[in-house]
Amino acid sequence: MGEFVLNPQLEADTHLVSELESCSLRLLDDARWPWLVLVPRIAGIEEWHDLSKGQRIMIDDEVARVACALKTMTGCEKINIATIGNMVRQLHIHVIARNQEDANWPGPVWSYGEREPYEQDDADSFITAFKRNF
Amino acid sequence: MGEFVLNPQLEADTHLVSELESCSLRLLDDARWPWLVLVPRIAGIEEWHDLSKGQRIMIDDEVARVACALKTMTGCEKINIATIGNMVRQLHIHVIARNQEDANWPGPVWSYGEREPYEQDDADSFITAFKRNF
Repeated sequence: MGEFVLNPQLEADTHLVSELESCSLRLLDDARWPWLVLVPRIAGIEEWHDLSKGQRIMIDDEVARVACALKTMTGCEKINIATIGNMVRQLHIHVIARNQEDANWPGPVWSYGEREPYEQDDADSFITAFKRNF
Repeated sequence: MGEFVLNPQLEADTHLVSELESCSLRLLDDARWPWLVLVPRIAGIEEWHDLSKGQRIMIDDEVARVACALKTMTGCEKINIATIGNMVRQLHIHVIARNQEDANWPGPVWSYGEREPYEQDDADSFITAFKRNF
């Protein structure tokens, strides 16, 4: 398998929030939605069901903690959680805060319209606020 | 909380595949993609992170088993797993087999185009074939 290396597209599209025990927690660089991505630091894994049970439990604990904190922080209407990977195959899990007024509600966020990158200050503020709730 | 009752919209949009230990496993009535839905039989739950850790482990075991069997059965390019719930709030988890030639690849399946209901025989055949792999 070799060593884990973060996919260059995931790296380019995100800001690092924190290195958790199992995952690199990252903010997707799209200010239209509060959107976090967890990337398990495991080389060569594309499908959720190819993880061991122990890996799934550890990663899902981080997913649930992130989802709970993001809901608390944003007071959003609904959390969306997904692992899709049709474009970038390295396993990654999306955790997104959705609201009735947001872009494409109640449709999905993926492949919708044009990304709106954060100003660096806004990304930093988001990350600081998230960490207060995490 | 009261007793668990399957959401009427989920019931109307799906065919029962099997009652698993934690979830009702159902085939979404849209022949464009091989698309299964797991509905945990727990009353009043909308968010994944509101489940207990024990509930998450049991449900995720069923999700991973379903995903593995669906990949084996279809030989698909990529499995998509998601809990969204922007329209139907009762917690449910999508497991979908995706291929490069399918509708809206590599975009998401949700809110795309018009649903194409199965002929009853085709739904029955899908369910029979799935169970052989499950």
